[in-house]
Order: sequence, then C-alpha cells, then structure tokens
Amino acid sequence: MNFNETTICDHLVQLKNTAPLVHNITNFVVMNNTANALLSIGASPVMAHAVEEMKDMVVIASALVINIGTLNPEWIEGMLTAGKAATEKGIPIVLDPVGAGATPYRTTTCWKIIKECKPTIIRGNASEIMALLNANVKTKGVDSAAASEDAVTAAQQLAKETNTIVVISGETDYITNGTETLQIKNGHPLMPKVTGLGCTASAICGAFAASTENTLEACASAMAVMGIAGEIAAEKAQGPGTLQLHFLDALYNLDANAIQKHFKA
Amino acid sequence: MNFNETTICDHLVQLKNTAPLVHNITNFVVMNNTANALLSIGASPVMAHAVEEMKDMVVIASALVINIGTLNPEWIEGMLTAGKAATEKGIPIVLDPVGAGATPYRTTTCWKIIKECKPTIIRGNASEIMALLNANVKTKGVDSAAASEDAVTAAQQLAKETNTIVVISGETDYITNGTETLQIKNGHPLMPKVTGLGCTASAICGAFAASTENTLEACASAMAVMGIAGEIAAEKAQGPGTLQLHFLDALYNLDANAIQKHFKA
Amino acid sequence: MNFNETTICDHLVQLKNTAPLVHNITNFVVMNNTANALLSIGASPVMAHAVEEMKDMVVIASALVINIGTLNPEWIEGMLTAGKAATEKGIPIVLDPVGAGATPYRTTTCWKIIKECKPTIIRGNASEIMALLNANVKTKGVDSAAASEDAVTAAQQLAKETNTIVVISGETDYITNGTETLQIKNGHPLMPKVTGLGCTASAICGAFAASTENTLEACASAMAVMGIAGEIAAEKAQGPGTLQLHFLDALYNLDANAIQKHFKA
Repeated sequence: MNFNETTICDHLVQLKNTAPLVHNITNFVVMNNTANALLSIGASPVMAHAVEEMKDMVVIASALVINIGTLNPEWIEGMLTAGKAATEKGIPIVLDPVGAGATPYRTTTCWKIIKECKPTIIRGNASEIMALLNANVKTKGVDSAAASEDAVTAAQQLAKETNTIVVISGETDYITNGTETLQIKNGHPLMPKVTGLGCTASAICGAFAASTENTLEACASAMAVMGIAGEIAAEKAQGPGTLQLHFLDALYNLDANAIQKHFKA
Repeated sequence: MNFNETTICDHLVQLKNTAPLVHNITNFVVMNNTANALLSIGASPVMAHAVEEMKDMVVIASALVINIGTLNPEWIEGMLTAGKAATEKGIPIVLDPVGAGATPYRTTTCWKIIKECKPTIIRGNASEIMALLNANVKTKGVDSAAASEDAVTAAQQLAKETNTIVVISGETDYITNGTETLQIKNGHPLMPKVTGLGCTASAICGAFAASTENTLEACASAMAVMGIAGEIAAEKAQGPGTLQLHFLDALYNLDANAIQKHFKA
Repeated sequence: MNFNETTICDHLVQLKNTAPLVHNITNFVVMNNTANALLSIGASPVMAHAVEEMKDMVVIASALVINIGTLNPEWIEGMLTAGKAATEKGIPIVLDPVGAGATPYRTTTCWKIIKECKPTIIRGNASEIMALLNANVKTKGVDSAAASEDAVTAAQQLAKETNTIVVISGETDYITNGTETLQIKNGHPLMPKVTGLGCTASAICGAFAASTENTLEACASAMAVMGIAGEIAAEKAQGPGTLQLHFLDALYNLDANAIQKHFKA
C-alpha cells in the first residue's frame, strides 16, 4: 500500500475537477454545515428526503450519503428508496450510523439500510461501529464512549460481513476493507466539541468516493483532509465557535502545500 | 425608472421602521441563516409549517416566504394553506423554487404553488427560473448550471405569465415584471460557496416587499443589499465560513454610506 | 437566599464533572446552535424526536428539553411520549414555549405538555410567559413584545399553578418558583439579534438542572452563564454573525475569573 500525501493531493484535484453532486439524506442538526463543507471542498450538495423525488434525485447524483441522526419512519422510507436506487445505479453510498447503540431503533434501522441498500462505506465513531456488531456496547447518545483503537477489530469484522469500507473517526482514524487498514493521525482535540464534524466527514467521504476509483483510499483522503483542515482551523480558533468557520475556510483553501505540511499517518 | 442609491436607503429605513414579521416556510438547511439575516436587516422572522397553525400565523405576518428546498407532501400542504391565506390577506408572497428542474416533483410543486397561491415574487437562480418554463433545462441539483443573463428572457416571460416579479440571482441580478427589468451588479464570487444565500435573498425580498409599496423596486433593493453586504463581508473573509458570519454583521451594520459607496447597477 | 458568583462557579464545575446527556426535542432553526452550546458548556447533546425511540432515549438522558419552535402533530406526539417517560424517570424537563400566544395551536400545545408531562422548568420571553396565562397578550411571532419586568407577576403565578420554576429572559432575567424570585442582569443588547439564543438558554437550563440539586439556583446559574458569555462575545463581535460564534467560544472558555468579573444580579 502506498497511500501518502501525493495520493491525497491527486484525489483532491480529481474531486475539484469533477465537482460531484452529493445527495444527502441527513439530520437536521448538521444539514447546513454539511452542505457548506461539501461546497468548500469543491463538491455540489443537495439535501432531499421525500420518497416522491428520491429516485429522480439519485439519477443526477454521483454519491448518496445516508445519515440517521434525526431519523423517523418517513425519513427511513426515503433513505431506503434512495439507497436501493443508488445501488442499482452503482454510485457510492455512505452510511453514517449516528447514535447506533443509543437506542434499538437506531441499531435496527442501520441494519435495515445495510441489508436493503448495501452501502459502500460505513463511517462512525468507535461506539457506533462497535454497536453495529454488539448491542451491549456502551454509548453516550451520539458521542463516543470508546477510543477509536478499541473498535478496529469490530470495524474489520463489520467491513468483511457487510462488504463495505468501514471508517472509524477518532484521535486516530482507521479506514479498513477488512483486510487492509489505513490510519490517519491528523485532527485536533477541539473537533469533537463542534457538533456534526463526524457527519461532515461522512459527506466528504462520499465526495471523494464519487471522484476516486479506489474507495479505501478515497476515504483515507477524506479523513486526512478533514483532520488537516481541523488542525489549520485550530491554529486560528479560540473555541468551538470559531473552529467551525475556520474549518470551512481551511477546507476551501486546502492545497498541496498544506497537505504536505500537515499530513500524519 | 429612477432606481438608485437613494431608493435603496429609503427602503432600508422603511424596513427598519416597520420591522415586518416575515413568516417563512423554508428548508432545513437554511432556516438558521435565514432567520439571522432577517433579524440583522431589521425584520422579525418566524419559521412555522404545520397546517394546524398556518392561517393564524399568516394573520400576524406582513410577508410570507415559501421555499421548497427540502419539500415533502406534509410541508407542501402547509405551503398551500399559508399561501392561500396570504393571498386572501393581500400580503406579499415570495416563492423560492429551490432545485426546480432537478426533479419533476420540484417543478410540479412550484407550479401548484404558483397556481393556487399566486405569489407576488419568484426568486431563483438561472437554472431554476428556466426550468419553470422548460422541463428540459439542465440543472445541477440546487446549484445553477447557467449564467443569470441566459435566463432573462425566461424570467420576463415567467413574470408575464404568472403576474409576478421575477428575480434571477447571479453575477448580475435581474429583477423584472415582464416589461421593466432592473439590474444589480453587486455581489462577490465567494457568495455561491456559502449554502443558502439565495434562500436568504428570497427572505430579504419578502422583508423589503412587506415595507415598500413598489414591489419591483423592493426586490431590487433587497438584491442590492444582499450584494453589498456580500462585498463588505468578502473584504474580511478568508473563505466561505468567515464570509457567512461577516455577511450577517454587514447586513446588520449596513447604512447609507456603505450603500452609496458600493452600489453598482 | 445566597445565590452569588461562587454558586455559579460550583454549578459549572458540577456540570463539567457530570457532563450530562441532554435530550432535546427542539426546532429546526436552532438545533445546530443548541447542540454546540451544550458541547461548549460541557454537556453532551442528543437531538431525537421519533416516537419510536423516545422512551429509549430518555432512559439514557439526564435532562429533557422540549422546545415547540417548529411544532407539528407528529413532533408533539414525540414530545408527549418523551415528557411522560422523563417525568416517570424523575429527570428535569424544560419546556420552551416558543411563540406561545402567536397562534392558538402553540398555546394549546404548551398547556397539553404542561398537563401531561409536568415540566420542571418553563423558560420563555415575556410575551410567551404572559401568553400562557392570558390568551389576549400581544406577541410578535417568536420575538417578545414586552419587557421581562412586565411578566414577573405572570411568571410567579404560572410557577405556582404549574409547580415549576419559571424563567423569563430579557434585559433582566427573572427566575421564580412562585415565592422566591432571583434576578440576573447579565447580557447584551445584541443577543436578541441572534436567532435562538433563548432556545439555547432553555437547553443550558436543562444541563445545569441535570447536575445541580436546587433547580431554582441551577436556572439562575444557567441564565448568568448565558449573559456573561454574551457580554464577553459582544466585546469581540462586530454584529450578530460574529456574536454567535464568539458566544460559543466564550461558553467553552468560561471560568471562575470570568464569572467573578462579569456577574451582575
């Protein structure tokens, strides 16, 4: 495996050249920030959830991101309809299992989506990834109660079982197809104090996967870019409020120099 | 026609003096920014969508903004109920046809709203305005795939057919009643990199239309104010994240001096 | 009564030590800012509304915040289900009666929640608190049309009738159990120009009530912390846009020094 700074730079150029339309069915908390992050990195976001237009929206999309953060039965129906259409069309599908393990409803819904839509990528925090394999794991709502390294074995098993790329975000990010596992060590401790940066990471994975052939590496690039932008933002931030907006600026201004200077694997 | 800096200043003073209550039925992505923009310019925003309270909310409102960004059947019912009540009451109604043309569901819904609610103003990007007249236009989700000047003829035709003021936002903004067409050349290239500034423009059109008799000029003032605030914000911004917040500050601090210094028609 | 700077500092330490999970059923406009404010102060937010998971989410939560800002029948069902579960479990419930009085639907829904869920705390602006006792009060949508001191008698009566702590936010904040009434004089005139800081205050009341035994004092600490963070933010802000983010930073960085320097009762 030869994933390095140059890979990330190449992927970023490809993303900006293709400017993929990323269709998001995501939660109310993060919609604005997710759309802004996708615009900042060079993708084109669309947020839509009505069953009535799911197939038509997938037709024009290059990736689909399903995030269960504020789920309800009507939205799940939209997710399943879009997910099946996306599988049929062959575009990457990212599942963000927000709060899996916090309630049975969330865990069950994730598995329904996994079985019916066959996502390409599952990105969550350690608690969420572990919860998908084991209902007894401790969670703290939507925040992780475990470190990312504790979930690596679960992630590898989940990747094999579901034939997906599994991404655990945390102090170290792990990206695995079950056999190969990449690590990204970029990021900053202030990032978990901003709501929804994990959700943003899922959307950015979708954007990279839409414009890169190797999905494992696409996700590693996405997580590296997230972490690097977070580090650059943290240099200017005085807290979580300023971090969020400098993060968007950093994503927008990210170039080969910044990537080469900051990348840590 | 004598629309100039003084007109805009007069309209802004009127808006601040009347502080109109603007009722928004808008999408999940932009609700926060739209409300903040309305507060910053001196209006009073309310966001409400339930059929159960639509008529009562319209009773106390001075303008209604209908934005179909994250539409579904239940919300459409609320939009139609509010729209009919607003027409009956005689307050300005702004329709923002977000993503018209991206899916048939969106285009059809817009026409349903146009026919049943008779909006006063339709504000969209070039793709959306063209899509309302011709289902074959190319769109890129909710972003425009065309320049605003390409949509001027369509806008004029749409204005005549629907008896509305049509506003196209873009590098140059066009505001037309079908016969007269005003142009506003303010704005900044970073603005489309912030999600939902178009939606904000629609709400600001509603606020100006609520407090100004001449709706064509009210919309021109709204678009000028948007563009000028965007230019002022861009001077301080390092990217889309900082642009959004400096934009709100600029709206809040906007005065005759700034308008006279920046206005370009 | 001996509520002072030291009380607030003690409560803040307790909050940070317990890091309570606060379950919010709140409106679309403020979800992001509310979650970020809870993270900044040291709590853990979760946003969830589906009836299907309400009981399970309450099981892991330390406080429940019900905010009717963008209510509809489906969400009300979720609120009632969660509220009853929270009463049974004995965790604090905060009701934020956004726009009570603006439409009968809102006022009626508030009383339904009060009767069925027995909230611990009701936090609103003057218009909303008065509207809960008298349907004839004037409101301006979700903004207050009255000063907080005008609502003190209503707040005391409401507190007695409903056996709650009632909090009126305004230039002076009043916190009452019907007999004792505390005042907090912190805050800044720019704060009402940022949408949803009242909603944030309700969530912060929930976080303090979850980690402090005396609910009256917990709410006073919450309002003091809100006002102090607002003052600190206003020193750096050039308008409502920058105020919001500096406010989150200020909440995050708040310490005993800042509290002692700024507190005004």
